[in-house]
Amino acid sequence: MYTRADLDEGGERPGTPAPVHDLRHHGDAEVRDGAAGLVDLAVNVRAGTPPRWLREHIAGSLSALAAYPDSRAARAAVAARHGLPEERVLLTAGAAEAFVLLARALRVRRPVVVHPQFTEPEAALRDAGHEVGRVLLRPEEAFRLRPEAVPESADLVVVGNPTNPTSVLHPAELLARLARPGRVLVVDEAFMDAVPGEPEALAGRTDVPGLVVLRSLTKTWGLAGLRIGYVLAEPGTVAALERVQPLWPVSTPALAAAEACMRPAALAEAERAAAEVAADRAHLLAGLAEFDEVRAVPDAAGPFVLVRVRRAAEVREVLRGLGFAARRGDTFPGLDGGWLRLAVRDRATTNRFLQALDQALTAVG
Amino acid sequence: MYTRADLDEGGERPGTPAPVHDLRHHGDAEVRDGAAGLVDLAVNVRAGTPPRWLREHIAGSLSALAAYPDSRAARAAVAARHGLPEERVLLTAGAAEAFVLLARALRVRRPVVVHPQFTEPEAALRDAGHEVGRVLLRPEEAFRLRPEAVPESADLVVVGNPTNPTSVLHPAELLARLARPGRVLVVDEAFMDAVPGEPEALAGRTDVPGLVVLRSLTKTWGLAGLRIGYVLAEPGTVAALERVQPLWPVSTPALAAAEACMRPAALAEAERAAAEVAADRAHLLAGLAEFDEVRAVPDAAGPFVLVRVRRAAEVREVLRGLGFAARRGDTFPGLDGGWLRLAVRDRATTNRFLQALDQALTAVG
Repeated sequence: MYTRADLDEGGERPGTPAPVHDLRHHGDAEVRDGAAGLVDLAVNVRAGTPPRWLREHIAGSLSALAAYPDSRAARAAVAARHGLPEERVLLTAGAAEAFVLLARALRVRRPVVVHPQFTEPEAALRDAGHEVGRVLLRPEEAFRLRPEAVPESADLVVVGNPTNPTSVLHPAELLARLARPGRVLVVDEAFMDAVPGEPEALAGRTDVPGLVVLRSLTKTWGLAGLRIGYVLAEPGTVAALERVQPLWPVSTPALAAAEACMRPAALAEAERAAAEVAADRAHLLAGLAEFDEVRAVPDAAGPFVLVRVRRAAEVREVLRGLGFAARRGDTFPGLDGGWLRLAVRDRATTNRFLQALDQALTAVG
Repeated sequence: MYTRADLDEGGERPGTPAPVHDLRHHGDAEVRDGAAGLVDLAVNVRAGTPPRWLREHIAGSLSALAAYPDSRAARAAVAARHGLPEERVLLTAGAAEAFVLLARALRVRRPVVVHPQFTEPEAALRDAGHEVGRVLLRPEEAFRLRPEAVPESADLVVVGNPTNPTSVLHPAELLARLARPGRVLVVDEAFMDAVPGEPEALAGRTDVPGLVVLRSLTKTWGLAGLRIGYVLAEPGTVAALERVQPLWPVSTPALAAAEACMRPAALAEAERAAAEVAADRAHLLAGLAEFDEVRAVPDAAGPFVLVRVRRAAEVREVLRGLGFAARRGDTFPGLDGGWLRLAVRDRATTNRFLQALDQALTAVG
């Protein structure tokens, strides 16, 4: 229900204390009206998705739309995929709903968000009336997290892994060390399935107290429009989140998709896609390394890279004129106008982009 | 995310003060496991829906799932259908989400729900921490509302029109007289599109202060599984509700459906369906009038009827054995175990049901 005007004008939802950064700006606003024909490097959804088999599977669910959604099979499938009992699983209408549920349901007093990262968790916490502390990771430390940077008093810590927009993959054990009695540790693993083998995943772990893992099917499977994601947490936390969820929160087509994406063949396809992302990202980074004016955050692990670009805002404008939409960085706390986020695309697209970037850098001088 | 066990065991969401009635029991629990092959008279969704054209239209939207939902066209279509500006329209993930938003967003201190009615508004208000007053309409007054029964101090009044489960259609002007400065008047018109010509609709009215109208596409169009509905209200109220809504609350297929259902051809189809419901209901009521043991609430206007039946619980059990699932009445505040709600079905189905009812009444003696 956000209009383009809201997003473009940096419109916080009314009544929310205005932060310096536009937490409600998302990449989708950069590829809407007036962006027809632009190659989308701003939204981190895998190209060519959803695959045909998945579209057909979802279409097959439409004949059952007259019945209310029955989430049991999908919940069981998610639980089985992560080796967890079902009471540790909550299906949500995308990760965005999960952030609202967390902000509303948990009795926390000192929430802290590790930035730069996806801004929706902080926005949801603020909308629920919380004061939100920030841990700002620093470019000169390659946006790595030192656990001691998180205040001991924090009773809710939100961190992304791999992190949007930095593409940094934090070690699982480092994150696990953030857990404390009386603290909820939220790890947003929305992009983890783009990391081959998921070596740093905390999903499925039951030995980390207060752990809440968020997962998305949006990016790998191209289901941004369907609104489906899930939360893995202790049963008491799942029950608390469920309590503030509307009845029938996830639609029948979304449930059908979730179940299908948990099947072994789908997991194998996701793993192959993750390997492709890694290869395509290496190609992009090699190309970017040719430019003196561009510096990428090292060790990118997600399906996007964050780059420091000389005269980034102008470069981004010229790139739009050349047909490429890059994501601005300055709406992320901890970043400024000198950063751009670039989605990893196939080699041919990347090659064309690198040519355009060359032109743009030359043009702005 | 409600399991059948939750619903059957009368499970309130944990932590909620337990009311006498199971507010979280819904008809869908009566036609799930163990109910295969039962003729569903418990869920108020029009049979044979969604129509093929609508299914195909929704299927057509699946190729765009990789993009985040863009609600603008659907919002504009809903606004145009009701002759309202877009800022008076909020699309929601079904009416169930709307009740949660109302309970969370509005600063009210004395909410009152007019019962018997759909229980989700009261459940959502309780979950949000409100104490909820009840106005109980009485069977001996045919469940009619006398405006003076609503306490003057109520700053939120929720009423259904036509009312689920009584099927009573309140006069629009009577409801409008409930409006007061400083009071929000929520009229749940989820079943209004089943009333030919909608003579008592408040949707589209802008002269009733504090009016909030809820509409559903679920029943007439068979979209219970898709999660789509909408709120019509003053712009300030819409903005307040939107503020507590997650980002991208309504999925792309649901938006496609909403837009399509607002087209003139769809509205004409809904009007024809409403006329059929009226004829089929008259047939059902004529059949029920043959039984001394059955008394229907008069002047039913919705796609269901509420009936007082001697030894209703036993009759309901025998009916299940004979292949018909009727909705129990005792989970609705204001009703007891002597009531059943029956969905209006086509004449042939109704004839078979009436035969089964005859058998059941004879069996229980």
